Amino acid sequence: MIRASIIGASGYVGIELVRLLTMHQDVEIVHITSRRLAGKRLTEMYPHMKGTADNLQYEDVSVDTVADGSDVVFTAVPHGTAMEYVPDLIEKDVKVIDLSADYRLSYDVYERVYGKKHEKKLDAVYGLTELHPEVAEAGLVANPGCYPTGAILAAAPLAKMGVISHAVFDSKSGVSGAGSDPSNVSHYPNLAENVIPYNVTSHRHSAEIDQELRLLAGDSVKFGFTPHIVPAIRGILTTAHIMVSRRVTKEEVMGAYHEFYDKMPFIRFLEGGVPTLGSVRGSNFCDVGLEVDSRGERVVVMSAIDNLTKGGSGQGVQNMNLMMGFDETTGLVFPGLAP
Amino acid sequence: MIRASIIGASGYVGIELVRLLTMHQDVEIVHITSRRLAGKRLTEMYPHMKGTADNLQYEDVSVDTVADGSDVVFTAVPHGTAMEYVPDLIEKDVKVIDLSADYRLSYDVYERVYGKKHEKKLDAVYGLTELHPEVAEAGLVANPGCYPTGAILAAAPLAKMGVISHAVFDSKSGVSGAGSDPSNVSHYPNLAENVIPYNVTSHRHSAEIDQELRLLAGDSVKFGFTPHIVPAIRGILTTAHIMVSRRVTKEEVMGAYHEFYDKMPFIRFLEGGVPTLGSVRGSNFCDVGLEVDSRGERVVVMSAIDNLTKGGSGQGVQNMNLMMGFDETTGLVFPGLAP
Amino acid sequence: MIRASIIGASGYVGIELVRLLTMHQDVEIVHITSRRLAGKRLTEMYPHMKGTADNLQYEDVSVDTVADGSDVVFTAVPHGTAMEYVPDLIEKDVKVIDLSADYRLSYDVYERVYGKKHEKKLDAVYGLTELHPEVAEAGLVANPGCYPTGAILAAAPLAKMGVISHAVFDSKSGVSGAGSDPSNVSHYPNLAENVIPYNVTSHRHSAEIDQELRLLAGDSVKFGFTPHIVPAIRGILTTAHIMVSRRVTKEEVMGAYHEFYDKMPFIRFLEGGVPTLGSVRGSNFCDVGLEVDSRGERVVVMSAIDNLTKGGSGQGVQNMNLMMGFDETTGLVFPGLAP
Amino acid sequence: MIRASIIGASGYVGIELVRLLTMHQDVEIVHITSRRLAGKRLTEMYPHMKGTADNLQYEDVSVDTVADGSDVVFTAVPHGTAMEYVPDLIEKDVKVIDLSADYRLSYDVYERVYGKKHEKKLDAVYGLTELHPEVAEAGLVANPGCYPTGAILAAAPLAKMGVISHAVFDSKSGVSGAGSDPSNVSHYPNLAENVIPYNVTSHRHSAEIDQELRLLAGDSVKFGFTPHIVPAIRGILTTAHIMVSRRVTKEEVMGAYHEFYDKMPFIRFLEGGVPTLGSVRGSNFCDVGLEVDSRGERVVVMSAIDNLTKGGSGQGVQNMNLMMGFDETTGLVFPGLAP
Repeated sequence: MIRASIIGASGYVGIELVRLLTMHQDVEIVHITSRRLAGKRLTEMYPHMKGTADNLQYEDVSVDTVADGSDVVFTAVPHGTAMEYVPDLIEKDVKVIDLSADYRLSYDVYERVYGKKHEKKLDAVYGLTELHPEVAEAGLVANPGCYPTGAILAAAPLAKMGVISHAVFDSKSGVSGAGSDPSNVSHYPNLAENVIPYNVTSHRHSAEIDQELRLLAGDSVKFGFTPHIVPAIRGILTTAHIMVSRRVTKEEVMGAYHEFYDKMPFIRFLEGGVPTLGSVRGSNFCDVGLEVDSRGERVVVMSAIDNLTKGGSGQGVQNMNLMMGFDETTGLVFPGLAP
Repeated sequence: MIRASIIGASGYVGIELVRLLTMHQDVEIVHITSRRLAGKRLTEMYPHMKGTADNLQYEDVSVDTVADGSDVVFTAVPHGTAMEYVPDLIEKDVKVIDLSADYRLSYDVYERVYGKKHEKKLDAVYGLTELHPEVAEAGLVANPGCYPTGAILAAAPLAKMGVISHAVFDSKSGVSGAGSDPSNVSHYPNLAENVIPYNVTSHRHSAEIDQELRLLAGDSVKFGFTPHIVPAIRGILTTAHIMVSRRVTKEEVMGAYHEFYDKMPFIRFLEGGVPTLGSVRGSNFCDVGLEVDSRGERVVVMSAIDNLTKGGSGQGVQNMNLMMGFDETTGLVFPGLAP
Repeated sequence: MIRASIIGASGYVGIELVRLLTMHQDVEIVHITSRRLAGKRLTEMYPHMKGTADNLQYEDVSVDTVADGSDVVFTAVPHGTAMEYVPDLIEKDVKVIDLSADYRLSYDVYERVYGKKHEKKLDAVYGLTELHPEVAEAGLVANPGCYPTGAILAAAPLAKMGVISHAVFDSKSGVSGAGSDPSNVSHYPNLAENVIPYNVTSHRHSAEIDQELRLLAGDSVKFGFTPHIVPAIRGILTTAHIMVSRRVTKEEVMGAYHEFYDKMPFIRFLEGGVPTLGSVRGSNFCDVGLEVDSRGERVVVMSAIDNLTKGGSGQGVQNMNLMMGFDETTGLVFPGLAP
Repeated sequence: MIRASIIGASGYVGIELVRLLTMHQDVEIVHITSRRLAGKRLTEMYPHMKGTADNLQYEDVSVDTVADGSDVVFTAVPHGTAMEYVPDLIEKDVKVIDLSADYRLSYDVYERVYGKKHEKKLDAVYGLTELHPEVAEAGLVANPGCYPTGAILAAAPLAKMGVISHAVFDSKSGVSGAGSDPSNVSHYPNLAENVIPYNVTSHRHSAEIDQELRLLAGDSVKFGFTPHIVPAIRGILTTAHIMVSRRVTKEEVMGAYHEFYDKMPFIRFLEGGVPTLGSVRGSNFCDVGLEVDSRGERVVVMSAIDNLTKGGSGQGVQNMNLMMGFDETTGLVFPGLAP
């Protein structure tokens, strides 16, 4: 039984971590922190957790207190804030999984993209375990962004094949990615029966996609990324339109995806059918499917994830499993909620 | 490890049983039957189950084959059809949980309400474990209907107090209760942004509500029941408007509900807030909350369940736990999916 | 061509008035006011109005300026604020339709229910034209609340028959009634796939229902009212469960509804089928349907309105038509948006 | 007052035509035909039309009868069936707007794409009036497909500029495009909270996009088209990712769009903000907006239409207006339904 804590457990990433960790047989949650909610029981804010997490109470305690009582700490605070907590935790020899963007990118890229000086540099592994088995040896893992998780997993085998001439990632996301605070985009009359594109050529998650595709392809990969909010709570469906630099056949591409993904427990590469949000809702699976156009010039790869699970907290637990020496799938192999 | 089978596993009740049983550490699923789907893998029909139920295949086998390999059998077939399977299973000394209406009512009531002769009479316990602990000794349990589960649990303590003068159960249900086959009511353009009342004075589930409230109150209880379909996949919110025969105070009524429910693991009686579908989605909990009007003449009790879980397959597993000597909560204590 | 203005045109009531008045051949919109949005074009806030209301600009002008340029003024400001504008408008001999609660109730009831002293008393007609034809002679009309519109229209014929022993109004409302500002209840992850009861025994709209049913029945009518928010933008479905003081037949009750409503252009009394939100979305119609239980002791009447149209701005225009001497239906007879 | 009829008025295209034509001051609907519904009143099938189209009754009459009583006929029957009606209508000198695919394409393309011999060849104009003013002189207009309408309008100015190197049209559609008959994709539990890609490299509407872009660019334009169904009743949001053959600036592209569209009454080219389904719901407008990436190599153009209005029946009425000598906007300038 290991002891885990969550710094910044008030939002959707935090509550999803709690949901998953309460179902994990080898983990005990020790501290959940929130300045705003300190003193309140978790179940006051999230009544659906009654009967399964009655003992958890939000605290406003020091990093030291958290570190002293924990084997592993999840930092689920905003970008730019995580770097205030992480170095102290690492110094105390606690394993850290940071769910913010603070440790995902090289520091120069981070500073350019997030417009903020990074003063607390540390070695971190990008926590997409499908591409980075070295997570198992890491002390600090930077949990990937939700959009990059879906986009990179859609394109990785083709990137590795070295045939991407140009890619367009068109993502359709549920609104929980925008957080638990009400906003114009999450206002039901604005979102129901609607589709809302945003940051159509300038989303910051592009930097992560760029970094990982470059690693796979051995060179910069040309791509565009455009996100949309759709009327759904959870999930990201990414349609990757991939123009290839030479003609490919469906058999060849299917083969490459099988080879890449068949041993990976959370990637379900589909022989037939298409990935949909409904099939991954609430689960840590990433469904991947593809078609090749009749000329062999465009491959359309679709990936579906639950943004809060495989695209967030579930991936965090997957990283934790590897870092703590558990089997990667411990506590994470359950079906999504369908219908 | 016990062996469980499901007769009629093609629909939503069946697939929800599979979801729950795959998460139950003491159960192995042996047979899932479906004439229509015989030969197909479960994951072909329900791709969200990939990676968690890959070995399950629909069969079209005899009742004897099912009985011989199973300790417990769930019958998830239509009303009127269950009675063709249940007696043979019982004869083979297999425990049976029937999810149809065939064994819920006294036979004369059944024949009147369902307009069908009942030729296969057997002793059965009405499987609302909160009211019927004798489930633990039963060989055949009639799993309650989804609406009755919510309505009876909302009103039970007041019925036992003997103060109900007249009750109105106004239920708002997700559409999964209507099954997995497309229909006019489940057609997205008809249901989205809509509320659809149906069977407003004549729903057959009234008979179960009548039977159980009568048992609690020791006498017939006057009530009306009106169901509505709302734009939701899962869940039933029942608003029970209860006119009382004498003035009551909120304290008195709250006390009665606490006394009735505090020991019951799946009833979460709320001190504050209101039950909502969102808090029980995907879980076996039933949330109950209430208000008393300023004159003490009307009590509004609200209950929320997931119709497929506590209102169906979850309750079936809860019954199975008691019948097989497990703790009632085994495999069923996990939070719902929120957000 | 008459000149109309809207004080407080920034929210959903205001924008729905603009939608309806731009489709009204005899009305020109002169002023739309909003302190917060003064200087902005309407189409900046509501881009769906481009091409149909390009000339409208929010102003922050005095009541006198509005009055001088207008034949009729709609006040669409919060409860308690309307009374700051209405008396000056009436003094200037402008017709006023107030969409707040400030003039709907007798003043003692208003002060008790809204907890606020009423200093600006004036004669006003309750603007449910189906019950108050004297709207045609009024200088000030108090536009009814959305819930009371649906509840009163559901029960009116039975109230007039004098047979209501006890009524329960269980209402299911879209969330636009809560306004255009984001809030916890309108936060998509909280509302989608959910049903949320609120103010279950204490909603302030009860006072309007009480006032109007009493007028019809000639005596106080016992009732309870419980509202719920459902996942819909527009619409209120009210299920009125009416326990009658003597046995009634369906024919008798149908007859009473036909007699009451057959001449009223916006009430569609259904011979068969049930009212649904989908049938009235975006229109000024109120659909009414009913069933009588087999014992003749409970009548279930359902009414469906669009809360922003018949339950708000459409009813406001209907009142305007009568006050200005137009046909009641001018500009309002168009079908709702279905599918 | 002209006389219009609809052959095949039972589905969503038909009912939307009725909605629009009842609001058109210069049109009287004479015949609505449907074999299946012959004898039924329209309002029995579509109760939301009560009070606005009470006199309409489905008939099963001959083409001759329809032609004799009509100035213009809309054929709203399936692909392959329209060609059985259209030639006879044209022969009788009735203007025809065909909403099927039968006359949209050159006949060799039609036969290849739709896999059906075309025996009834006639001259027809592709009824995207923004590109084909010759609609005004046509006797037969082929009303465009819903996806092509959005895709072509998104890309037209860039096609005319001759700078498209490669385009990807990624469309997100409401489910009403799939028709009024329940199906697996329209089954609420399958579609709510979901996104469903389909025909990802092989949708037949590609042929129309190809034909029209080629006309504009003067040469074949390379593109891919991938549709998705989202949880919405109405609307198509098309994200056109356009890789350009030379660097472009936002100013240059904006200028081209302004020049192309500023005189066209139903195209609302947005200076700021993004097109969304919510802004065009129920209206005949097509909203278009764009961004250029920081390198000037990719233009992302978004278009939003209501698939049943501008993408179907509204465009049909727009064509009718031009064919009958009315102003193009008659009866079509009203705001969409928002919120």
